Amino acid sequence: MINEIYLDNSATTKPYDDVVEYVAKVSRDFYGNPSSLHTKGIKSENLVKKARTQIAESLKVDSKDICFTSGGTESNNLAILGYLKANPRAGKHVITSEIEHPSVLEVYKQLALEGYIVDFIPVDNKGVIRLDVLKDTVSDDTSIISIIHTNNETGSVQPIEEICNLRNKLCPKAVIHIDAVQAFGKTLINPSTCNIDLMSISSHKIHGPKGVGGLYIRKGLRLKPVLIGGGQESTLRSGTENVPGICGFGLATEIIFSKLDDNYKRTNELRNHFVKRINETFAESVVNSPDSASPYIINVSFPNLKSEVLLHHLEQRNIFVSTGSACSSRKTHHSHVLKAMGVSSKYIDGAIRFSLSHTNNVSEMDETIEALKEIIPIISIKRGGKR
Amino acid sequence: MINEIYLDNSATTKPYDDVVEYVAKVSRDFYGNPSSLHTKGIKSENLVKKARTQIAESLKVDSKDICFTSGGTESNNLAILGYLKANPRAGKHVITSEIEHPSVLEVYKQLALEGYIVDFIPVDNKGVIRLDVLKDTVSDDTSIISIIHTNNETGSVQPIEEICNLRNKLCPKAVIHIDAVQAFGKTLINPSTCNIDLMSISSHKIHGPKGVGGLYIRKGLRLKPVLIGGGQESTLRSGTENVPGICGFGLATEIIFSKLDDNYKRTNELRNHFVKRINETFAESVVNSPDSASPYIINVSFPNLKSEVLLHHLEQRNIFVSTGSACSSRKTHHSHVLKAMGVSSKYIDGAIRFSLSHTNNVSEMDETIEALKEIIPIISIKRGGKR
Repeated sequence: MINEIYLDNSATTKPYDDVVEYVAKVSRDFYGNPSSLHTKGIKSENLVKKARTQIAESLKVDSKDICFTSGGTESNNLAILGYLKANPRAGKHVITSEIEHPSVLEVYKQLALEGYIVDFIPVDNKGVIRLDVLKDTVSDDTSIISIIHTNNETGSVQPIEEICNLRNKLCPKAVIHIDAVQAFGKTLINPSTCNIDLMSISSHKIHGPKGVGGLYIRKGLRLKPVLIGGGQESTLRSGTENVPGICGFGLATEIIFSKLDDNYKRTNELRNHFVKRINETFAESVVNSPDSASPYIINVSFPNLKSEVLLHHLEQRNIFVSTGSACSSRKTHHSHVLKAMGVSSKYIDGAIRFSLSHTNNVSEMDETIEALKEIIPIISIKRGGKR
Repeated sequence: MINEIYLDNSATTKPYDDVVEYVAKVSRDFYGNPSSLHTKGIKSENLVKKARTQIAESLKVDSKDICFTSGGTESNNLAILGYLKANPRAGKHVITSEIEHPSVLEVYKQLALEGYIVDFIPVDNKGVIRLDVLKDTVSDDTSIISIIHTNNETGSVQPIEEICNLRNKLCPKAVIHIDAVQAFGKTLINPSTCNIDLMSISSHKIHGPKGVGGLYIRKGLRLKPVLIGGGQESTLRSGTENVPGICGFGLATEIIFSKLDDNYKRTNELRNHFVKRINETFAESVVNSPDSASPYIINVSFPNLKSEVLLHHLEQRNIFVSTGSACSSRKTHHSHVLKAMGVSSKYIDGAIRFSLSHTNNVSEMDETIEALKEIIPIISIKRGGKR
């Protein structure tokens, strides 16, 4: 059996060893409640402050602009619901895209039930938002626009700057919320130069602990909390701070940003190598991720097979991939992202997401190709015949 | 300098060493996303299941009745808001007490702004809810009653069974939500025999990790989620599960429940010893916690001094206490709990909360008394004179 090859890094990552150790150390030695008045509380508070600075520096923003949450889902919920609750006079027209993560999509669907006019902007066949449609959709009444930076299923990268510029020109009152969960720690995003108002990030996608996330909030923007109580996080997010988790998030951010460019370059090479080999080896396969996508996500369709069957054959060889986004993979419905890109059912049925980390290497990618070469002929449904 | 004496266990506890190690082990070895279809996901899911069972067994309920959250605050928010959102035809009359934790109190205050009729039941001078007032307050229109099991500032224990019986007789349609954050792991509570519908618990108050909590939901009760997205926790709580945190919560529950009676007995002896020595040594002091209170919380007023000054003198001697509840201690307002009990300003100003764990011992309590004997004369404001 070959060593574990983990290619499901967009679902979650293996935390860095240093992060695991630091979380354990903080848990043991700095267990005070940051709200306590004594030094044990203050030491914990200072550690939270340090993590806030680590994250703020990675985004080149003020540490006061970062609110800690329990993860990307809560960040997305807080951004959208928190903004609309705090700004009841903002317009009742809200916009998102067809390829959002469920933690954005479901919020907008709920807003539609609450009387908001919701527009879901389509994407082209490369999974990129149709700017022409967005241009025709925005109005004076548009209050918030939520767009995913890097799609979690295909890696397609959205033209965030163009979207912000379009907003600046056509609907300057609207705020822009970016779900950067799959982008943070992989590419530089400076929300203040981009004119992003709200931006969601998550720890466990960047080799940090699970159960922690963050929300960048542009200075001056008013939000109401979703979770209320003791008034932590400047009243924006009540609940005793997850100090060890927050500290681990801070450290993971510092580690991953210290080699951001190297990581990206390395992963880009891995992706190019893998895609080339896929195209060479499997004539019928289609790479759904466009060339312009994040190199961290490679979505490939193998027609005439069921992706779930392929996934299980791969895991028998200690190779771990996903059939779509992890958080919807237990559901039977088709990928809404591939559907929005116009991918046909046949190709959606056989779609596999290989999601990379800078910790992967070329031989892992090659071993995956070899495994696919063995598995695919066995599990493919012969044309016109039975399997 | 004496060894650290930590008497702020109601703010948060030091996690058990075994819990810290287990959290680290799960982080390293079982980092899969429970929603992933492959074995790494399934192994993580199984660990979450195990923790759910550990917690369910401690409450003698079905593991399906436990929903994991990010902490006690989220559990309280989800219980109240989730129930009311899912049951829009339930009555518009809601009831809580005057001595709730902010994560309940603030939700009820928000409900009042949203058009609900909210009654805050007063307590007697022992901090126990006035059942006679509750009896006169409930109506056919009452939809939910939230009561704290063990108050976080004084340890006063509420007559949960009587409250449930009263509900059964007078307003059977109302659901009972218990905030058991300070009670769980310290006393046995069986929500199903008590007819409790919803019960909030937290990990970091029982030597478990921060950032994890749970909500018991009676079978058949419908709740809508507060955080929406990928549909985790049977759609009740979206967001990638904090697997290591949940596992640590499960283990902490198992450890603390394995010696629940011993721990209680031991802590009760510590409390009795400490209260006796306080009463003997400081003639003017008043123990605000009633005899019937949880032994884990001892609230004492030292008149003629400012509790914050006493707290800082104690911490210089490596003794850590609180002036009130941790999550409101950074605010300057008076304790709403002591005020509700009719304690005068002079005594509220000098109120200290000593909160115990079964890990404390007699000599720690004695050393605290010795420290108080040294500090109090120095910091007391002389009657009629200046300090």
